[in-house]
Amino acid sequence: MENITKQKIIDSAITLFNTKGYSGTSVREISKMAKTNVSNISYYFMNKAGLQEYLITSFFDSYLNVLEEGYQQLKTMAPKECMVMTVKLLMQYHKEHRHLARFVYREITLDTVLVREVMSTYLTKEKFYWKAFLEEGKRQKELQAISIPMTIVHLKSMISMPFLQAQYLAEVWHYMPYEQNAMEQYNKMIIEWLEQSVFASPSYHQPLAL
Amino acid sequence: MENITKQKIIDSAITLFNTKGYSGTSVREISKMAKTNVSNISYYFMNKAGLQEYLITSFFDSYLNVLEEGYQQLKTMAPKECMVMTVKLLMQYHKEHRHLARFVYREITLDTVLVREVMSTYLTKEKFYWKAFLEEGKRQKELQAISIPMTIVHLKSMISMPFLQAQYLAEVWHYMPYEQNAMEQYNKMIIEWLEQSVFASPSYHQPLAL
Repeated sequence: MENITKQKIIDSAITLFNTKGYSGTSVREISKMAKTNVSNISYYFMNKAGLQEYLITSFFDSYLNVLEEGYQQLKTMAPKECMVMTVKLLMQYHKEHRHLARFVYREITLDTVLVREVMSTYLTKEKFYWKAFLEEGKRQKELQAISIPMTIVHLKSMISMPFLQAQYLAEVWHYMPYEQNAMEQYNKMIIEWLEQSVFASPSYHQPLAL
Repeated sequence: MENITKQKIIDSAITLFNTKGYSGTSVREISKMAKTNVSNISYYFMNKAGLQEYLITSFFDSYLNVLEEGYQQLKTMAPKECMVMTVKLLMQYHKEHRHLARFVYREITLDTVLVREVMSTYLTKEKFYWKAFLEEGKRQKELQAISIPMTIVHLKSMISMPFLQAQYLAEVWHYMPYEQNAMEQYNKMIIEWLEQSVFASPSYHQPLAL
């Protein structure tokens, strides 16, 4: 019962934050939409800032868990396959939490103390994981001559796009990132880019036998 | 004198919107930072919503002007060169208005009436221009076997990344999108992607003479 109330508060907050913005939404509105008492919000999250922090940190906790799992596979899998698998799992995670993802990605573009903390903890750790994949690829001579930082930035822009800009994709392109087909097409694009522009294809290593 | 006041209001609003969010900023705070009277904000922009609309529409008006200029060049230039040139000009425009760009890109992720209007006018027109470049490339058989919508989405994610996620880039990668060197490195990445993954290289057309 308790968890149902907590989840209702979370869902209502995400919906309102995505339509009226974080600072444009009041605790009263959240409690009204969640059909619960304001005191329940205080009980679970202290206040609106606590709710925001909870949403952002729980998003990145699970996000990093996906990366950590992929990273562990590096011991037994080829870096390219490992990275492709991790990207697919990460896209699945985003798809399952697409409204939360949109809120979190928007909030971290603000210049606040909370955002600075997210940068120096979660996003610095994320950087470590992506670098590990690519550096292992480099060590195994499977990487194109690319800049690792630029490649990670490029990858991150592709991962966040369908969720942060969900409305643009829906209204201008009639593309729905929660639909399985659309998502598969999008994943295919990222994976082709990884296979063709980041990792070297086998033929890259073998000079043509003329 | 009038224009100085108007510009001060605009600059203060962008700064505050990027630190406290749009709805977390009051007209009073804007007027205080701009060292002007609240009545001046009313005079130029009616209210905070008017100011927001002004910022978003003036950003996209100039944005579309850059695309329109590039589009006109399609008559005399090859589609690839024309698209590369337009991307460079667009990145320059973003760099010159990086704080405004960050605000606008964040706001258009909200689900509001204004945002829906932006989608159906500015962003639909933008889609028309990018499609024109790529379809002309296809007609001239200079395009790889790619999905045009996916390619535009991919391009847009790369264009907006350094401005929307400026703070992430600065704090996690020490990359400053307003520095000429950093910007050139980033542009190089987009252009290489366009040249290698979107447009076909000349060798793609000519089978090897064995």
